[in-house]
Amino acid sequence: MKLLSADELEAELRDIGATRYHRLHPFHGLLHGGKCTKGQVQAWALNRYYYQAMIPIKDASLIARCDDSAIRREWRSRLHDHDGEHDDDGGIARWLKLTDGLGLDREHVTSLRGLLPGTKFAVEAYVHFVREKTLLEAIASSLTELFSPIIIGERVEGMLKGYDFVTAETLAYFAKRPPQAKKDSDFALDYVRRNARTPAEQRAVLAALEFKCGVLWSMLDALHFAYVAPGHIPPGAFVPSS
Amino acid sequence: MKLLSADELEAELRDIGATRYHRLHPFHGLLHGGKCTKGQVQAWALNRYYYQAMIPIKDASLIARCDDSAIRREWRSRLHDHDGEHDDDGGIARWLKLTDGLGLDREHVTSLRGLLPGTKFAVEAYVHFVREKTLLEAIASSLTELFSPIIIGERVEGMLKGYDFVTAETLAYFAKRPPQAKKDSDFALDYVRRNARTPAEQRAVLAALEFKCGVLWSMLDALHFAYVAPGHIPPGAFVPSS
Repeated sequence: MKLLSADELEAELRDIGATRYHRLHPFHGLLHGGKCTKGQVQAWALNRYYYQAMIPIKDASLIARCDDSAIRREWRSRLHDHDGEHDDDGGIARWLKLTDGLGLDREHVTSLRGLLPGTKFAVEAYVHFVREKTLLEAIASSLTELFSPIIIGERVEGMLKGYDFVTAETLAYFAKRPPQAKKDSDFALDYVRRNARTPAEQRAVLAALEFKCGVLWSMLDALHFAYVAPGHIPPGAFVPSS
Repeated sequence: MKLLSADELEAELRDIGATRYHRLHPFHGLLHGGKCTKGQVQAWALNRYYYQAMIPIKDASLIARCDDSAIRREWRSRLHDHDGEHDDDGGIARWLKLTDGLGLDREHVTSLRGLLPGTKFAVEAYVHFVREKTLLEAIASSLTELFSPIIIGERVEGMLKGYDFVTAETLAYFAKRPPQAKKDSDFALDYVRRNARTPAEQRAVLAALEFKCGVLWSMLDALHFAYVAPGHIPPGAFVPSS
């Protein structure tokens, strides 16, 4: 592999998004197309809660290994976004408004009982990746946010249209995310463009984004397998009542 | 939860095996019943290779955190079992004879290109569990071996009968495993019976075995979803040619 220009590297990153980002996963076709049962939407929200809940752990792990005050300060805003200023704001609190709105018991959701093992292992792989790989790779693994504004637009429009049990208030989480994701991914992309300066570093950056796409994809694989075809819910996982 | 006697604890452990061990997974019904295509058997062997390859890493991680020479010495035999004395013996080498026999390119298998993300994350969750939990939980998580002799018997009989591309030589891995698994699980069960002395420790031991059953189950979920129904192979994963 030869050394790419920053623009060529960005083009390869965007190409990974175009072919591997979970917008293309068949479960999202069902979810956004109004084709899921309420139980399937509940299972999605309950499992995705664990991803949301672990994001500040992931981000603090990144800050904890970074010796550059300016980067730590920039990355800190992600903690504010997800943990908020009080118990009832922040991204995690808004995700719980979604699970509330879907009729799930909050204590059950936050207990993580009923979580699919596949969700748990994928999310934990992400946290371990950020702890164990280089700072450059850890930052690059956040770049799926480059692609999230489009999927969020499709999700909000599709879910409001497709499900009578979903309201704009239930989906408040998603209204807040696109500007946060834009700011965060602008920073991370700029960092990666400037700091991946050898072919090996550029390969590592591309592999980090592929890895992260695999995390998100694998979460939906587990969900789809367990809840779309009948008879595949693993022992101990959430069983929809509807 | 009250304090259980050692026999009660063992009965609860065996009950977890009876309800959560991957012998019950529908993919094993297909595999052992001769219902898989050659491509599906290849995908199973290729993905399971990563589990086999990581077992000595897992066992060395356990030894590395153990301050009791007698336990370290006992556990060391697992390294011998899997890594062998030379390149061509040991469990990993025998697993590669299986993938060879199925017509997979050895370099491709060991490169881990084509591995399902779900397999990777589940196996790595196991390694991290053994590194991060207590020694008691790490030892308890190995107890799925209590249940492996039966499934191995079913597998060898079912695969020899069901597939003309499988021979006894290809399945040499499985011939060696039952006595090793019996010795290892006898030791681990005795350790757990003697060392889980509080209700909290006993709960942790039971949860460790549930966790490990989830690892094995989740690997088959990923495999089943990707390779049994058409159209679900994730981007970048092994695509069978047959």
